[in-house]
Amino acid sequence: MAIESFIIKTPCSSANIGPGFDVIGLALSMYLELHVTIDRSKKTSTYPLNCRITYEGEGEGTDEISLDPEVNLLTRVALYVLRCHDQRSFPCETHVHIKNPIPLGRGLGSSGAAVVAGVMLGKECGGLKHLTRERLFDFCLMIERHPDNVGAALFGGFVGTYLMPLKPEDAARKEIPLSEVLPAPAGGIDTGIKPPEPPIGIGHHIKFPWAPEIKAVVIIPDFEVPTAKAREVLPAQYPRLDVTFNLQRIALLPVALGQSPPDPELIYLAMQDKLHQPYRQTLIPGLTEIVESMTPSTQPGLLGVCLSGAGPTILALATANFNEIAESIIAKFRANNIQCSWRLLELAEGGTQVLRD
Amino acid sequence: MAIESFIIKTPCSSANIGPGFDVIGLALSMYLELHVTIDRSKKTSTYPLNCRITYEGEGEGTDEISLDPEVNLLTRVALYVLRCHDQRSFPCETHVHIKNPIPLGRGLGSSGAAVVAGVMLGKECGGLKHLTRERLFDFCLMIERHPDNVGAALFGGFVGTYLMPLKPEDAARKEIPLSEVLPAPAGGIDTGIKPPEPPIGIGHHIKFPWAPEIKAVVIIPDFEVPTAKAREVLPAQYPRLDVTFNLQRIALLPVALGQSPPDPELIYLAMQDKLHQPYRQTLIPGLTEIVESMTPSTQPGLLGVCLSGAGPTILALATANFNEIAESIIAKFRANNIQCSWRLLELAEGGTQVLRD
Repeated sequence: MAIESFIIKTPCSSANIGPGFDVIGLALSMYLELHVTIDRSKKTSTYPLNCRITYEGEGEGTDEISLDPEVNLLTRVALYVLRCHDQRSFPCETHVHIKNPIPLGRGLGSSGAAVVAGVMLGKECGGLKHLTRERLFDFCLMIERHPDNVGAALFGGFVGTYLMPLKPEDAARKEIPLSEVLPAPAGGIDTGIKPPEPPIGIGHHIKFPWAPEIKAVVIIPDFEVPTAKAREVLPAQYPRLDVTFNLQRIALLPVALGQSPPDPELIYLAMQDKLHQPYRQTLIPGLTEIVESMTPSTQPGLLGVCLSGAGPTILALATANFNEIAESIIAKFRANNIQCSWRLLELAEGGTQVLRD
Repeated sequence: MAIESFIIKTPCSSANIGPGFDVIGLALSMYLELHVTIDRSKKTSTYPLNCRITYEGEGEGTDEISLDPEVNLLTRVALYVLRCHDQRSFPCETHVHIKNPIPLGRGLGSSGAAVVAGVMLGKECGGLKHLTRERLFDFCLMIERHPDNVGAALFGGFVGTYLMPLKPEDAARKEIPLSEVLPAPAGGIDTGIKPPEPPIGIGHHIKFPWAPEIKAVVIIPDFEVPTAKAREVLPAQYPRLDVTFNLQRIALLPVALGQSPPDPELIYLAMQDKLHQPYRQTLIPGLTEIVESMTPSTQPGLLGVCLSGAGPTILALATANFNEIAESIIAKFRANNIQCSWRLLELAEGGTQVLRD
């Protein structure tokens, strides 16, 4: 068979889950899909880097997605993996059809999913069977050094992630922009220089248990919060009492969400946060009211409410009455003149999958 | 039978376990024991508050333990519980024989154990059968508002504890000194004023799983670190990166210590801390070297090393080679001219027990 085809499916993800700022991630059942075909019967390609991209997505920001493989995040990431393994471009001729239902810049891990899917695309296109999921995690972390979303998207489930203490020479280059990983012009013209390979074991993860009753009600407001802006509003220093507040809750949360049946009072308290949500309410009108007014006693079935990642999406964990919970949150946003859509999602246990016939 | 007798057994405890500053506690198999007899045949007592105290303990500081029930911490705490229930003193005539192997001021929860045993003493002497363990926790937290040690000593096992957000009127009185709970002269002369009862549900706890292979090597240096002094050296504000460092680890630790067989690399990393140990090294010569030089690869059987509570005791969790691990830590203290004793302890699953014939 001259034509090889496969699908890469990567889940969206919700990071933080209240107190777990930059720590925990939850893979959810909305998937970025790459439908890839490689036609090895062709000897030459008219496409740059032998790669044609098509895109099918939803919502705003979609028209900003570049179909140029030298610019597109997914293909640039794939190319980084390929070039680390002495492959200068995609196999001739590759077609990547991107189907993306994950809204961009809303706190559902769209860029984390792109990085993970891109790394997997590099592995599959390059036939790099020796690359384990753990090693792919290192590649992801070279591009996106916040491990929570990429960890959830790659490994799936409910995960805790952490960075290893790096050696001094690696620590100096903490976040490596893609433009550096792929020498300028980024991802484009082949300079022949092999990009820096990731150190081994930058990040690690652990899978937490997850009670099967718990589902995610995801409320997506119709505006973007750029992650950089959401970070800017955070203070450089935190008072000790606020730190202890979060430490007490994040220690409980992974155990509490694994207990079946779930204990709403315990989970509700364990999902409270003082380290990022209070600072981000200026960017997300209505956030404080939503987080403070929704409780398991006022809203039966609810376990807890928090910001998904850097927002503006709201994540409500619940065991019943999903419609009512969503409507209640949507009404509070509407009072601030914000329109929303919502989805009922489940835990995406398996992480990124490669499907072949 | 005119003579009633019972024994209250309360375990010592280790708080923090690395990143879990003021959050998690571990009950360990060294027990404070109160051997109590109540001789109801007596109508009057020559002892103040009808209570005679005797004491049998080890180590330094023991001679500072008061045998006056108006002064002794254990009996004052018991009296607080009694007076909240309209009993002005101990039953006539009560004898409390204290057997205490827990070294004082070393970071093994000696005062937390005293508070818990004292609350239980009040319950038992007053016949207050309606007081649940959860309600006793509220009484403990009126005296000692750091829930980790008292939570472990009361409930036993490996626990996460947290304080409920208090109502404004309760929050204003955050830590209530015993002298206020028992109107002045503290615990002594009966002023007839009923002390303030604790709000309901100040603190909560959750039990974490604990892998049965894990044991605690406890190395006790021969000097005290007063908790107040150990708090003084901590900063009021923490940089965001240090906060994230601890959040990432504390999220993993409770799950990691419950996995059987334990994963040494994971646990070792999850026990690292940047929020209290680095600041306390000035009080504990050798601490940094001990924490940084002992790893599972240099020391087979070791899972991780941390300060026990506010120190100076070192807690090493391990599955084998306990002697070697203890000797290695003792040698590092000896290089700083500090002598140590050590004990091999196990998880104290049941918490505080009342034993009757």
